[in-house]
Amino acid sequence: MGMDRHLLERIREHVREAHRMLLISHVAPDGDAIGSLLGLGLLLREQGKDLTLACEDSVPEVYTWLPNSAEIVRQGTGPYDLIISLDCSDVRRMGTVFHPGLAGVPLVNIDHHVTNTRFGAVNWVDPSSVATTQMIVQLAEGMGWPLTPPVADCLLTGLVTDTRSFRTYNVDVAAMRAVLHLMEAGAELNEITRRSLDQRPLASVRLWGQAIEQLDTDGEIMWTEVTRSMRQRWGLGENSDSGLANFLSGVRGSKVVIVFTERDDGIIDVGMRSVPGYDVATVALKLGGGGHPQAAGCTLEGDLPAVQARVLDEVKQSLAATRLEEP
Amino acid sequence: MGMDRHLLERIREHVREAHRMLLISHVAPDGDAIGSLLGLGLLLREQGKDLTLACEDSVPEVYTWLPNSAEIVRQGTGPYDLIISLDCSDVRRMGTVFHPGLAGVPLVNIDHHVTNTRFGAVNWVDPSSVATTQMIVQLAEGMGWPLTPPVADCLLTGLVTDTRSFRTYNVDVAAMRAVLHLMEAGAELNEITRRSLDQRPLASVRLWGQAIEQLDTDGEIMWTEVTRSMRQRWGLGENSDSGLANFLSGVRGSKVVIVFTERDDGIIDVGMRSVPGYDVATVALKLGGGGHPQAAGCTLEGDLPAVQARVLDEVKQSLAATRLEEP
Repeated sequence: MGMDRHLLERIREHVREAHRMLLISHVAPDGDAIGSLLGLGLLLREQGKDLTLACEDSVPEVYTWLPNSAEIVRQGTGPYDLIISLDCSDVRRMGTVFHPGLAGVPLVNIDHHVTNTRFGAVNWVDPSSVATTQMIVQLAEGMGWPLTPPVADCLLTGLVTDTRSFRTYNVDVAAMRAVLHLMEAGAELNEITRRSLDQRPLASVRLWGQAIEQLDTDGEIMWTEVTRSMRQRWGLGENSDSGLANFLSGVRGSKVVIVFTERDDGIIDVGMRSVPGYDVATVALKLGGGGHPQAAGCTLEGDLPAVQARVLDEVKQSLAATRLEEP
Repeated sequence: MGMDRHLLERIREHVREAHRMLLISHVAPDGDAIGSLLGLGLLLREQGKDLTLACEDSVPEVYTWLPNSAEIVRQGTGPYDLIISLDCSDVRRMGTVFHPGLAGVPLVNIDHHVTNTRFGAVNWVDPSSVATTQMIVQLAEGMGWPLTPPVADCLLTGLVTDTRSFRTYNVDVAAMRAVLHLMEAGAELNEITRRSLDQRPLASVRLWGQAIEQLDTDGEIMWTEVTRSMRQRWGLGENSDSGLANFLSGVRGSKVVIVFTERDDGIIDVGMRSVPGYDVATVALKLGGGGHPQAAGCTLEGDLPAVQARVLDEVKQSLAATRLEEP
C-alpha cells in the first residue's frame, strides 16, 4: 500500500510552493466530490494554506451538514497559483469553474475514475481506489498530515456514498483499511450513512412505489420511468429518484436495470446498472455519457418513448454482443 | 478488545473435554444465526471435534450458498456431552431442538443480545458485539484457531446481516476491525452483501411497491401491512416482506415504523423500527415479543384491524411517555 513516492513528491512540491489554491470538484456533485473537496480543503487549511473550494453546482442538501460545506463557492475569484481537481475524470467535469483565465495555472488532477483523461500537470489517477477520498486518506498519510474528526467525516462520506455502504464490487481490504482508519480518527459511520444514504422524504418513497408499479421487463432488461407529472403528483423536485436505480439493481434475474428520468427541461436522464459481466459504460459512452462498467448514465433529448426505444435497442445489441463473446 | 480470560478458559475446558457436541441456533434463523452456527461448526471440526449443527427451522434460501449449510438438521440425535447455543437470548429461542432429554448436558451460551437470560452453565453474553459472529471471531483469536476463507464467509455474513451492511447504530471500531480481519482472511464482502441483503425477486419488489402505496401515517408513526391476499397476488410465500420495515425506517419525519404481516395461519407478525431515543423493544416486550431498542417485534392473534389498533395504541402511549421523560 501507500501511494507512488514520485507522485507524492511532485504533489508535495506543488503544494509547498503554492500561495493561493483553487480546489475544484465536479458538476452535479455527489458524496465523493463534496467529501474530497471539503476533506482536502480542511487538511490544507490546517497546513496554513490560503484556498478556495469551488463547484459549479450547489451542495446537495444531504451533504450540507458536513463541516465548511457553506464555504464552497460556485466560482473562484483568482488569481491562483495552483489548481487541484478532485474526482473529475475530464476537463468538462469541472464545469464553468475552470474558465479560460485559469489555463496557465498548474493543475494537480486527483481522481479514481478509470476513464480519467489525465488533463493535469500532475495526474494521480488510481482506479483501484473506491473513492477519491480514499486517495486523500493515502495522501494525508504520505504527507504526514493528521486526520481530525471533521476531516475523517468528510473523507468517510466519499467512501460510504461511492460504495453505497460498502456494497459495490470494488470494495477490497485496502478500502476497508481506509474506512477503519477514518473511524479510528473519529468519523461517525452511522451518522454519515443515515444522512447521506438512508434518509428519504415520504413523498420520495411514494414516488418509488409508483415507479415500481410501472416496472417493465424485456428478457434480462428491466426499466421504469420517473416523469415530470409523477414528481408533480408527490410535490417533488428533480433528483428525487436518486437511489432508485441502485435499489432496482438488486432484483433477481435482470442483468440490466434502467431508470429514465424526465428532467424539468424535458431532457431525459438515463441511469443504468448492470451485474458483473455486462458493461453498461460502453452503451452510455456510445450515447454520449459515461461511468463505470456496472453503473453508467447519459442524457438524451427527445420524447420519452423515443429515448426509451433508442436506449433499449442499444442495450439489447450490447447484451447480444456480450453473449457472443462468452466462451 | 479481546474476550474475558476467565470465560475463554472455561469455554476452552468444556470444548477440550467434549466428544460429541450439539450446536444450536435460534428458530426463524437470520444471517447471524446461520453464520455463527456454520462458522463455529467449521472451526470446531477443524479441531477434530464430532458435532451436530441444529436449528428447528430450515435455512433461508439466501444463506444456502454458505459452506455446509445442507448439514444443518432440524433435530439432533444424541447423546451429546456439550451443547453450545448461538445467538439465542433465551431457552425458547432454541425451539424444539432443545428437548427435555438434553436437560443434564452442560450448555455454553454464546450471544450478543442484551436481553439474554443467562440460561447456560457458561454464559458469554456481549451486547457490545454487533453480531454473535463477531464474538466467534474473538473466540477463534483467543483459542488460536486459524480463520479459513469458508469460516470467514460464514462469520462475515452475521456481521453484514445484523448491521444491514454496517448501517445500524452500534457499528463501532471493534466491529469494523472484525470485518477487516475477516476480509483479510478471505471473506468475500460483495458476494455476501449481494446474496444476503440485496437480491430480491421481482415479485417481492412489486409487493413492496404495493405496501408503500398503502402507507399510513399518524403523527410520528408510519405503518403499512402485508396481507395474505397481497402475497397471493404476487405469488409469494411468507417472509417475502423481509427488509421492508428497515427500508421504511429511513423515511424522514417518522419516529416509529410498523409493518403488520398477516401470516398464512392468520396470526399477525408485527415488525417495529424506531429512531434513537424511541424504544420499541419495551412496547414489543409488553405485547409478548422482544428485540432491540431500535428494532423489535411481536406476534399477535386477532384480525388485522384489531391488532393494528392495539399496537398503535401501545406505541402512542409509549411515545407520549418518552416525550414526558425528555428534559
